[in-house]
Amino acid sequence: MISLYELKGAGGRYYSLFSWRTRMALAHKGLAFESHPVPMSDKAAIAFSGGRTVPIIRDGEVVVRDSWKIAEHLEAAYPEAPSLFGGAIGHGLCHTFNVWADRTLVPAALPVVVADLFDRIDPVDRDFFRAMMEGFLKCKLEDTVAGRDKAIERLGRTLDPLRAVLKRQPFVCGAAPAYADYIVFSVFQWARVGTPVQLLAGDDPLAAWRERILDLHSAFARNVPVA
Amino acid sequence: MISLYELKGAGGRYYSLFSWRTRMALAHKGLAFESHPVPMSDKAAIAFSGGRTVPIIRDGEVVVRDSWKIAEHLEAAYPEAPSLFGGAIGHGLCHTFNVWADRTLVPAALPVVVADLFDRIDPVDRDFFRAMMEGFLKCKLEDTVAGRDKAIERLGRTLDPLRAVLKRQPFVCGAAPAYADYIVFSVFQWARVGTPVQLLAGDDPLAAWRERILDLHSAFARNVPVA
Repeated sequence: MISLYELKGAGGRYYSLFSWRTRMALAHKGLAFESHPVPMSDKAAIAFSGGRTVPIIRDGEVVVRDSWKIAEHLEAAYPEAPSLFGGAIGHGLCHTFNVWADRTLVPAALPVVVADLFDRIDPVDRDFFRAMMEGFLKCKLEDTVAGRDKAIERLGRTLDPLRAVLKRQPFVCGAAPAYADYIVFSVFQWARVGTPVQLLAGDDPLAAWRERILDLHSAFARNVPVA
Repeated sequence: MISLYELKGAGGRYYSLFSWRTRMALAHKGLAFESHPVPMSDKAAIAFSGGRTVPIIRDGEVVVRDSWKIAEHLEAAYPEAPSLFGGAIGHGLCHTFNVWADRTLVPAALPVVVADLFDRIDPVDRDFFRAMMEGFLKCKLEDTVAGRDKAIERLGRTLDPLRAVLKRQPFVCGAAPAYADYIVFSVFQWARVGTPVQLLAGDDPLAAWRERILDLHSAFARNVPVA
């Protein structure tokens, strides 16, 4: 069975945005896995990977670190299972989409989620998490709360093209979900696990799409501890 | 032979951003076509299409309007020719990418290109073009010139994720170009035909990518009248 090393939250929460990409990719491929939650500050626990960040998988003798590289590994190692990319063009374009999401969606969502998420991480990580996030944000965690409504508006504008697409097709990848859907979903699941703040209005096409993703693979992502 | 109805520029210029997507798709598929340049204001000339905008193709008995629908038509009608999307997942994700480009890249490029482009359209279109573009811009065409350096900076930030991807793979679609490359290229070709202003520094990964696209299909897009 595949082992997944990912961030350990309080109360059994899985709060790593990037691990949710891997979780959904594993579910999409129908691959069983065993979760190994690790505190963010415990670099010794993941030293075997040669790096300092999760997600990491151990698949037999192979260790792969980084959600994008893990997706590529799963697609290459399990070609008979449902495809994440749909071939060479979809693979290349999904890489582009992954970089776009990491550089626009993730930073837009961070100030919305981070203050509440702080209360839901493993307590042992408090100092580590605060130092890292305040480095990204260039302000105190608590200072994000006052600006949260404006941050939700900014995130909404970043999401506008996806909202327009999801009026025309049910998934980011067309008629059925694939890895690019999970890239976007990882941001929403991160928020769902990290904060009670609502990112989307009930009638938003993105909200209906999120429900469709939560229903996938026997409601794999729905039935987890959330904020 | 396929007929392509597209915007008529001054001096034989083909300046329609969206027609460049169709032109590149036709070249990618190896399909010969005959261009029918039409002034932007001449709606009678394209009334046969049932719509008011180009590009339009006539392919035998079939008339298709809108660059995205044309790409879908070409992919379905010529499945033996090189693929634009690479299957269902690539098709769906490329649709998402098309909407993203139309809602972020195109509006970011418009204020950089529009004032110089005005001097390169068919003179018969001057009033029509000005009224339409000033409606989009909410200012006079000439007012864009003072803000052009800032507009180039904004466009550069919108392009940042693509720049990062093109350091890691040669094309937006991976190892080889496909329709999503032509979506991005259409914006650069529109600028190349419309304005002598340079959008990219010489050492920008996007500039090297643009050269690779200009070389494709016997330098199909390189050898046309430019600004």
